[in-house]
Amino acid sequence: MVSARSSDVRIGTGVDVHAYDAGSPLRLAGLDWPGEPGLSGHSDGDAVCHAVVDALLSAAGLGDIGGLVGVDEPQTAGVASTEFVRIALSRLDEHGWRPVNVSVQIVGERPRFVRRREEAQRTMSELVGAPVSLGATTSDGLGFTGRGEGLAAIATALIERG
Amino acid sequence: MVSARSSDVRIGTGVDVHAYDAGSPLRLAGLDWPGEPGLSGHSDGDAVCHAVVDALLSAAGLGDIGGLVGVDEPQTAGVASTEFVRIALSRLDEHGWRPVNVSVQIVGERPRFVRRREEAQRTMSELVGAPVSLGATTSDGLGFTGRGEGLAAIATALIERG
Amino acid sequence: MVSARSSDVRIGTGVDVHAYDAGSPLRLAGLDWPGEPGLSGHSDGDAVCHAVVDALLSAAGLGDIGGLVGVDEPQTAGVASTEFVRIALSRLDEHGWRPVNVSVQIVGERPRFVRRREEAQRTMSELVGAPVSLGATTSDGLGFTGRGEGLAAIATALIERG
Repeated sequence: MVSARSSDVRIGTGVDVHAYDAGSPLRLAGLDWPGEPGLSGHSDGDAVCHAVVDALLSAAGLGDIGGLVGVDEPQTAGVASTEFVRIALSRLDEHGWRPVNVSVQIVGERPRFVRRREEAQRTMSELVGAPVSLGATTSDGLGFTGRGEGLAAIATALIERG
Repeated sequence: MVSARSSDVRIGTGVDVHAYDAGSPLRLAGLDWPGEPGLSGHSDGDAVCHAVVDALLSAAGLGDIGGLVGVDEPQTAGVASTEFVRIALSRLDEHGWRPVNVSVQIVGERPRFVRRREEAQRTMSELVGAPVSLGATTSDGLGFTGRGEGLAAIATALIERG
Repeated sequence: MVSARSSDVRIGTGVDVHAYDAGSPLRLAGLDWPGEPGLSGHSDGDAVCHAVVDALLSAAGLGDIGGLVGVDEPQTAGVASTEFVRIALSRLDEHGWRPVNVSVQIVGERPRFVRRREEAQRTMSELVGAPVSLGATTSDGLGFTGRGEGLAAIATALIERG
């Protein structure tokens, strides 16, 4: 057991928003959601993975997802966003950081997340190698999430010296 | 004095949004606000309590408010949301966690929060058994909060091994 | 090297939103952005500084920016928001707290932040005396940020006993 100075921990926040694109398959929190409207995006539009990447990178002071993987570049078109999470974790590891936990709040009307919340948490926790908590809520009919135009994900990450 | 590994702490985020319902009394941050428009909701619509519950549960990896107390079920209709906070704290305690502090940012036009900010903070801090900070801002006339359609609360919680 | 109890750290969250005001110069993250539309506000409208102030104050339980510096009062008209950050840090210091790190997510169409992200991070980190991470994203054309009506900044701060 190693004691830690509090300065050995850092926090980070990431937000991602994608519009629904009924013509695409939905990828969210590393899962396929057959029959649900998809999310637009150069990659697979997985807003949970994108918010997690931004929270982890921000905590470690390593920039954001745009700088990491060139999300707008041809070679990342259609790439699974879980791969972006792996790349972000490699960057953290290179700089001596590892995740303690990540918490993600999803705001949107679709998918009906509760049915697969635990499966999604397991998938994301295995991917990150630390507990990832996922919660979902609606915005009570208000705003773009309430009108069913898109989905937002807000992630906070706690990391520590590895 | 006990030293701690950073892996003995976790963070969590919760967001809650409710539309105003002028026909209901306002309950917010555990207080009654006579003369202010209320918030819709199956329970009392206290968005601050709901965001705090989600942040605490998410930090501990214990799901979200929907799974905890069946917020959509008949027996919780009209229940005070402070009770949801107590239930969440019991769940954390059962799993060996306790809150370090919680920070809540309210975004909305009403109520004029500043007059009772300290009273609300005392009420929430006593309820949670740890410091709860409450701040309020507007969205400069923009979006559903700026149009006075509803109120949003964003909470982050830090917890530690009890 | 001093070991720390986790109760020696606190987290805080702050959100700030400002509408664009094409007739004003843009100040954001402590930088001037010539040629970009400005942000409305009684002060210089620097939403990043305002969110950072609220996150730091909230973490320490010291209220919010309205109570700190009278943002609506005549004497603060046109004041640089970097000064608000300095005042907040003085208040934290008086109460025995210092920042560990701050993470800020900007959501908006303008300015094109990536070009000056590192410069902005250096400026804010020097100002705060601890690492400040800045990321920027859009909301995929949705909501008031997507319509180019305004900019939002969400900050989370971690602080420790000084």
